[in-house]
Amino acid sequence: MNKILDFYFEYSSPYGYFASTGIEALAARHDLTIRWHPILLGPMFKAMGSAPLVNIPLKGEYSRRDFQRTAKLFGIPYTHPDPFPIATVSAARATLYAREQHPEKLATLVGKLYAGFFAQGRAINETSVVLDICAESGLNRSAAESALAEDSLKALLKSEVDHALSQGVFGSPFLIIDNEPFWGFDRFDHIEKWLQATA
Amino acid sequence: MNKILDFYFEYSSPYGYFASTGIEALAARHDLTIRWHPILLGPMFKAMGSAPLVNIPLKGEYSRRDFQRTAKLFGIPYTHPDPFPIATVSAARATLYAREQHPEKLATLVGKLYAGFFAQGRAINETSVVLDICAESGLNRSAAESALAEDSLKALLKSEVDHALSQGVFGSPFLIIDNEPFWGFDRFDHIEKWLQATA
Repeated sequence: MNKILDFYFEYSSPYGYFASTGIEALAARHDLTIRWHPILLGPMFKAMGSAPLVNIPLKGEYSRRDFQRTAKLFGIPYTHPDPFPIATVSAARATLYAREQHPEKLATLVGKLYAGFFAQGRAINETSVVLDICAESGLNRSAAESALAEDSLKALLKSEVDHALSQGVFGSPFLIIDNEPFWGFDRFDHIEKWLQATA
Repeated sequence: MNKILDFYFEYSSPYGYFASTGIEALAARHDLTIRWHPILLGPMFKAMGSAPLVNIPLKGEYSRRDFQRTAKLFGIPYTHPDPFPIATVSAARATLYAREQHPEKLATLVGKLYAGFFAQGRAINETSVVLDICAESGLNRSAAESALAEDSLKALLKSEVDHALSQGVFGSPFLIIDNEPFWGFDRFDHIEKWLQATA
């Protein structure tokens, strides 16, 4: 049986975006089954007494540079968005909708939302843009629009974030394989080493 | 002419220790000349409104696990010290003393201080232990003891930390090559890629 790879990601996270571009290849190399968990970092920052990376003195300036450089070194299209960071509630809800109702479109939607924001300058904080991207991913736009307005989907996102917190998730990307937590795009090579060592 | 690699490190930083075990090989591979900068993270945490990693909710617990795992994956001897973190003023001052007066012993001293704390359980927060390690590194113990008590060495450490802050240094390890800043042991592979791309 395949191992499970729980993949936690926030849409306003550049490193989450970088991870999303490599997660399926990682899973394929090691026969992992991905479970996709869109999260919101706001509640996690609150738990840690922290703030978005770019708002922290010293670290913020470095981070902006590291986003661009990492993208370039790994050959990932990247244009730093403005405004940044953004609210990603609609994008996260749409992702949960796809996961629950149309799982065959899920990976495509995640890829298009991330690329929309970080490579094409699309305002995925706006629900209308998220719905456009849903349609471009093969989902029915008006069905998605109805779903996003439902209390059950709002409640699902909230419980996903609470569950993530209870699992010790505090950043994006955050990956858990067999109870082993890995934080950051820069842990992909650690994951490879770890999987080889435990295989 | 060789490029300069400015290497900033705090002795109470596990990732600084991991970096120290690979820094000379990195420099040798790319004809870089290392300039060693022992720093204290306290003033940087203050500037960022941050705290030692292990004291941050969620992130702290993950970090303790990541220290052990990273050491294991990279084959670096590691026993998580207790107490941790510690004050490293004496270790940093001794390192500056070696750098200024006995540069041929510097890399050895850095290696022995780090291994003393992170592999051998030695209390390098204590000046007497730092002086023992100075002696084991080929320095004269009593000359080092006198130097550590001098105001000029205290002032040098303070100015080093201030200068590091002015360069945007906020963590350990922090490396600057040709004005390009890299934060973290997990940026070593980025440095390799970056050096290859700019060679």
